[in-house]
Amino acid sequence: MRRKYSNEFGFHAKPMSVREVLKEMKDICGLMIDLAYASVLLNDKDLANEVLELEREIDSLLYQLWMSAAIAVRDRADAEAMSSVVKVAMAMDEISNAVSDITHVVLRKLGIHPAVREVLEKIEPHYKRVMIAKDSYLVGKSIGELDLDIELGIYVIAIRRGKELIIDPEDFEKFQAGDVVVVKGPADCLEDFAKVASGEIK
Amino acid sequence: MRRKYSNEFGFHAKPMSVREVLKEMKDICGLMIDLAYASVLLNDKDLANEVLELEREIDSLLYQLWMSAAIAVRDRADAEAMSSVVKVAMAMDEISNAVSDITHVVLRKLGIHPAVREVLEKIEPHYKRVMIAKDSYLVGKSIGELDLDIELGIYVIAIRRGKELIIDPEDFEKFQAGDVVVVKGPADCLEDFAKVASGEIK
Repeated sequence: MRRKYSNEFGFHAKPMSVREVLKEMKDICGLMIDLAYASVLLNDKDLANEVLELEREIDSLLYQLWMSAAIAVRDRADAEAMSSVVKVAMAMDEISNAVSDITHVVLRKLGIHPAVREVLEKIEPHYKRVMIAKDSYLVGKSIGELDLDIELGIYVIAIRRGKELIIDPEDFEKFQAGDVVVVKGPADCLEDFAKVASGEIK
Repeated sequence: MRRKYSNEFGFHAKPMSVREVLKEMKDICGLMIDLAYASVLLNDKDLANEVLELEREIDSLLYQLWMSAAIAVRDRADAEAMSSVVKVAMAMDEISNAVSDITHVVLRKLGIHPAVREVLEKIEPHYKRVMIAKDSYLVGKSIGELDLDIELGIYVIAIRRGKELIIDPEDFEKFQAGDVVVVKGPADCLEDFAKVASGEIK
């Protein structure tokens, strides 16, 4: 899934179908929950901010959905048929709002109580958010060519590239300097990947 | 995890630690999301009502958490340390409220738009909610002895037994007539299990 961020008017570059918008909302919502728990567990401000970015993205998608739905509806019967789509989308928006509240624990530095850590520790796998450095070995290499899943046991969930967000990127996707990459996998492997991304390991 | 439902005073039979309450909220919250999507996908009123029951359970747990937290707090430092627990618990309560809104699609008979079905169809595995009949082969048999995971490829997520809810039951747990069981697994296997539960297959 690849898309541009909404511009200042709240419009997307390309119109999306109702189905596409709903699918993207669901994928982002699921990712947000994992990332929010991970941000608290790791006390990771970057992950927490990623969750807030995604929450804004859900807001924008809800708006997009309203538009797509309104364009598709011609009469009362259409409007009735579309009501379940709108209901589910609104619930996902509410969920995303609630999820982003979890990140306040990290962003307002409430201090993570051991009980919270213990409960969230069961999240498998772990997540990390890393930026690809200019001199990293990864620059210009595709996910498929690096065999990240086989070689390092990690999986690329999303790439944020400027105003573009690529969720569940394809194998042909090549890393660029400045990409912010969200990966999941065992903690040790994530550390190794972070070192390769920063250029510390060549 | 096994617990009694809250009585009319909102108290639980046994006091629970903050950690226990938080763990239970997280487990129930995750289960609710899966069940809510499944209720829409299957247009299943029983599953939708199960989600609403669980939402009330989360409400009750949040109350329980306030009490446990208040009892544990002795001074300002304790209160600060506890703030992250309360924040996460409140966010889970908000999530559960939003999730139960999804079930309105089923309960208010909005009609499920094909776009919603298509998006939620990717849920793997599927879920079903069945009641154990008096003359079912399952009555008096334990989960372990039935080898449900190996024999049928399904997994028991929760058993509702009167006022008791058993989430992620142990192998020694025996089915009783009248138990409401939530199972997950491939659709065919769930159908088979439902037939055994109803006594249609002996």
